[in-house]
Amino acid sequence: MPLSPDQQAEIDAQRAQPRQTLRTVSEGLEARLYTATPVLDHGFVRVVDYMGDDAAICQAARVSYGRGTKSVSNDAGLIRYLMRHWHSTPFEMCEIKLHVKLPIFVARQWIRHRTANVNEYSARYSILDREFYIPASEHLAAQSTTNSQGRGETLSGDEAARVLDILREDAGRAYDHYEAMISQDGQAGLARELARMNLPANIYTQWYWKTDLHNLLHFLRLRADAHAQYEIRAYADAICDIVRDWVPASYAAFEDYRMGGATLSATALDCLRRMLKGEEVTQENSGMSKGEWREFVGVIEG
Amino acid sequence: MPLSPDQQAEIDAQRAQPRQTLRTVSEGLEARLYTATPVLDHGFVRVVDYMGDDAAICQAARVSYGRGTKSVSNDAGLIRYLMRHWHSTPFEMCEIKLHVKLPIFVARQWIRHRTANVNEYSARYSILDREFYIPASEHLAAQSTTNSQGRGETLSGDEAARVLDILREDAGRAYDHYEAMISQDGQAGLARELARMNLPANIYTQWYWKTDLHNLLHFLRLRADAHAQYEIRAYADAICDIVRDWVPASYAAFEDYRMGGATLSATALDCLRRMLKGEEVTQENSGMSKGEWREFVGVIEG
Amino acid sequence: MPLSPDQQAEIDAQRAQPRQTLRTVSEGLEARLYTATPVLDHGFVRVVDYMGDDAAICQAARVSYGRGTKSVSNDAGLIRYLMRHWHSTPFEMCEIKLHVKLPIFVARQWIRHRTANVNEYSARYSILDREFYIPASEHLAAQSTTNSQGRGETLSGDEAARVLDILREDAGRAYDHYEAMISQDGQAGLARELARMNLPANIYTQWYWKTDLHNLLHFLRLRADAHAQYEIRAYADAICDIVRDWVPASYAAFEDYRMGGATLSATALDCLRRMLKGEEVTQENSGMSKGEWREFVGVIEG
Amino acid sequence: MPLSPDQQAEIDAQRAQPRQTLRTVSEGLEARLYTATPVLDHGFVRVVDYMGDDAAICQAARVSYGRGTKSVSNDAGLIRYLMRHWHSTPFEMCEIKLHVKLPIFVARQWIRHRTANVNEYSARYSILDREFYIPASEHLAAQSTTNSQGRGETLSGDEAARVLDILREDAGRAYDHYEAMISQDGQAGLARELARMNLPANIYTQWYWKTDLHNLLHFLRLRADAHAQYEIRAYADAICDIVRDWVPASYAAFEDYRMGGATLSATALDCLRRMLKGEEVTQENSGMSKGEWREFVGVIEG
Repeated sequence: MPLSPDQQAEIDAQRAQPRQTLRTVSEGLEARLYTATPVLDHGFVRVVDYMGDDAAICQAARVSYGRGTKSVSNDAGLIRYLMRHWHSTPFEMCEIKLHVKLPIFVARQWIRHRTANVNEYSARYSILDREFYIPASEHLAAQSTTNSQGRGETLSGDEAARVLDILREDAGRAYDHYEAMISQDGQAGLARELARMNLPANIYTQWYWKTDLHNLLHFLRLRADAHAQYEIRAYADAICDIVRDWVPASYAAFEDYRMGGATLSATALDCLRRMLKGEEVTQENSGMSKGEWREFVGVIEG
Repeated sequence: MPLSPDQQAEIDAQRAQPRQTLRTVSEGLEARLYTATPVLDHGFVRVVDYMGDDAAICQAARVSYGRGTKSVSNDAGLIRYLMRHWHSTPFEMCEIKLHVKLPIFVARQWIRHRTANVNEYSARYSILDREFYIPASEHLAAQSTTNSQGRGETLSGDEAARVLDILREDAGRAYDHYEAMISQDGQAGLARELARMNLPANIYTQWYWKTDLHNLLHFLRLRADAHAQYEIRAYADAICDIVRDWVPASYAAFEDYRMGGATLSATALDCLRRMLKGEEVTQENSGMSKGEWREFVGVIEG
Repeated sequence: MPLSPDQQAEIDAQRAQPRQTLRTVSEGLEARLYTATPVLDHGFVRVVDYMGDDAAICQAARVSYGRGTKSVSNDAGLIRYLMRHWHSTPFEMCEIKLHVKLPIFVARQWIRHRTANVNEYSARYSILDREFYIPASEHLAAQSTTNSQGRGETLSGDEAARVLDILREDAGRAYDHYEAMISQDGQAGLARELARMNLPANIYTQWYWKTDLHNLLHFLRLRADAHAQYEIRAYADAICDIVRDWVPASYAAFEDYRMGGATLSATALDCLRRMLKGEEVTQENSGMSKGEWREFVGVIEG
Repeated sequence: MPLSPDQQAEIDAQRAQPRQTLRTVSEGLEARLYTATPVLDHGFVRVVDYMGDDAAICQAARVSYGRGTKSVSNDAGLIRYLMRHWHSTPFEMCEIKLHVKLPIFVARQWIRHRTANVNEYSARYSILDREFYIPASEHLAAQSTTNSQGRGETLSGDEAARVLDILREDAGRAYDHYEAMISQDGQAGLARELARMNLPANIYTQWYWKTDLHNLLHFLRLRADAHAQYEIRAYADAICDIVRDWVPASYAAFEDYRMGGATLSATALDCLRRMLKGEEVTQENSGMSKGEWREFVGVIEG
């Protein structure tokens, strides 16, 4: 269960008290406020607060470009123009604050995105809960043989069962020992900041994470990508749905220009021009390495 | 006049349309939304949007410290504790977006604070208005003789009058020539991105500036300080009033621990301890340079 | 003259004293250390210090990817791989410190790149020199008619001459008045922090600017681009030459993937695939706006 | 053993090849380059590269303040002045790159300092080594009873022995299972990115970490502090020694103004002034809470 009864009660109370504001309001995001979207087996993402919407992006752009933006007929067109030309500062004018519950090994990937504000649950002060990420068996896969990183084939039922047994038993035992070490029953009890070192990387932690829309979209481009590890991608996908509701025009432009788009090198563009003129271009005469050529063919064949 | 009629009409329309939200609301800041506070002769600061309040800071701190924060009886006490121990991340959970009109030489000091989002009016796209900062004569002062930076005595009436004549005439002439160069009347008209180089640093520009509360307080500590140049201090003072209305408990803690407080070196603390024991401490036996000693005496004599 | 005799003497002394180090050394950049590359009429760029080289980028990448990088045969191949897949952190392991002399209106564009360290000459403490950027007449151009930003046709000789007269006279007069206001001859003398407001945006300032290679390449992609204002592009071009000497493999990859490359949207990729299959695609059946289509045709026709 | 034979051989080879440079050289740091300082039971810190020294800080300050810095007689005095008045930008002109081996729970605290560049060993690509932090028994302490965070009394011999047995056995078993899951002997072998989730937070990781001197000193102020967790403080102490050798004047100023200094609130300063006048000030008439008063007494009694 992603939320404790206490957390749910607090959230329900907050949802029951709409208030008046003069600020920009995103109807799509208001509908999501204080509701937690489940992710993985015990995790969640929920929107705690936000600032701005599609109109606020255009407003900021129009401060910058003044009359220069008059020629663009409407907000959606302006947003597409900004996204296409990498004018990132107007997107920085929107901000979102999320409450996320996630396994520690996912948190360690996530925190590498530095342009964000974070308040994480502290296991120096407080005791972590007995909650561990145990993958569904369809997500248990072998090391990829073609890619030095990432997963290949799904494990067979027997092998998957062995893995799940290990993960469950080790997590349970580690937590039992964590509790035994901090217990003050008949002993002093080890400090929490030390005892936590016995816990495995699939235990859940929580944080408040706040970032601006430009940096959020950059995060999503990397983490909602097919090459990202499945577990962080599950969070990125949930956040994509949130962003679509929050700033629909920006999200549509992001899908077209970033998620669905591709960057081609000068060498690749040259090949493309030759191909469009009818020339037969192969890896051998392309000027690309085998790896690059394979990726290039992937892009132009879709 | 700080706001154009168009700007005022847009603001009035926005103020007339309160909407419902489930987000945290700061009543003090709602009262200020869309009202421009005049600064200097043509400048202003106005709040465009905000996220969070004192309660949101405590909420984020309690996520981090869990049960550890239960012992602090109330929000104001928790906020004082966080401020005193330099726990900055909870303050980063609040965000504010300001629309500021300011002279370019002030903007150049301001922009050195890098942890913020900015959209500035672009003089490549658009034409700057004929508005220049001309100081009030009581703010015209001589170079300080004791401080290699900053101002000393106010200028005499005659000298002040000469200065004001120069500033007004040069600004007016520079703007006339700016208009003449970009004019397309009987000539091609110089590109705006080039013509702007003729304009002096007291011409006004505008920007949207968005930052979190932690970084804003750091900005205010440096720029609302008595050693800051008067012109940027005028903006910082206006923002201090805004922050007081937005997050009163945080602002009170900031005034006590930062604006009114002082940092003492190990050497200074040693002198202090000797003085409290009744020893006579002088610059000669203090271990401090003359400059440090003068500053130390300033702190302990208040 | 870009460097004062004092500055030149100091630089010559530094160049005369090579020392031993165990650090990574870039021979290409050592040859440039302490030599100033002239930019515009009075500006310059010179390398003050640097950290790392192409090998240091690979070393950092190999810490991250361990055995995963063994399959890439050599450093140049690894660097191309990192650049192609937007693995930016290894490039952040190189750092460079530049001393730049530049007009204030260029400095104002430059400073918008926030991920850098800056120490600028302070006109609060010190007196600015009488040096202004006066464009060569071939760089005086009209406002573009097709682009709301940027330059179009070069001005005619007569109009250019009028512009140059204005720029020279206004700058000279503004500086005469600046000197008159701060003079302590028979008067108190206006504080420098105030007098500077009379100086136009084409006066030169100086700064030390330090950034990592990843952020520097991002700066160059935007500022060495054909759409950047000529005056900042002149600096970016000078820095491109420096980077080529410093990290030749990284610079070659940057030229291929960034400067010479292009990002295509999902819509554009779809058009491309149809074209490669022999279908006739026009703006009308492309799903793109006229502006996007024009840019797309520009990319595929080269 | 903190370094593998391969790593040591590579380091020895690098130390054997001094090269010439025109850059600023810190003799103190050259003596440390490529030598690893052991930290905890299997960790280390070693300097990989650096940029700048005390003189470079002064050089940057003198660019900013021009003649304003002439009055300060020497570099050490200027550095003290900069540190005392929080002029941070000159310290940002120095940069250092460290190679650190550290337990994951320490890495998680460390990474919260966001203004740095990081390349961490990736357990998606590579296999982690069987090395875990097992505390020395004198560092095993109970949860503090006066502080909701941190450690109190050292554990008794019996309790310590029980804790050490748990930590050693659980780490060993978790690593055995990690190896069993990724093994491709008679099974497909679980992907590394998944298997790592079974490993506890005391396993060692490695990274390259690069930051500027200003941000490094901020890190050290927080992490070399008596309130920091012992395990990260061990790293901070090792880095303090490195910084002392690198920039001795800056480090001396840092010790005086930051590590040994204290920040007093307006309320505390008021109490101090009353005490210096001979008034008896107690917690009751101080205006401070009990917690603040206790900290205040700690500062003035030393």
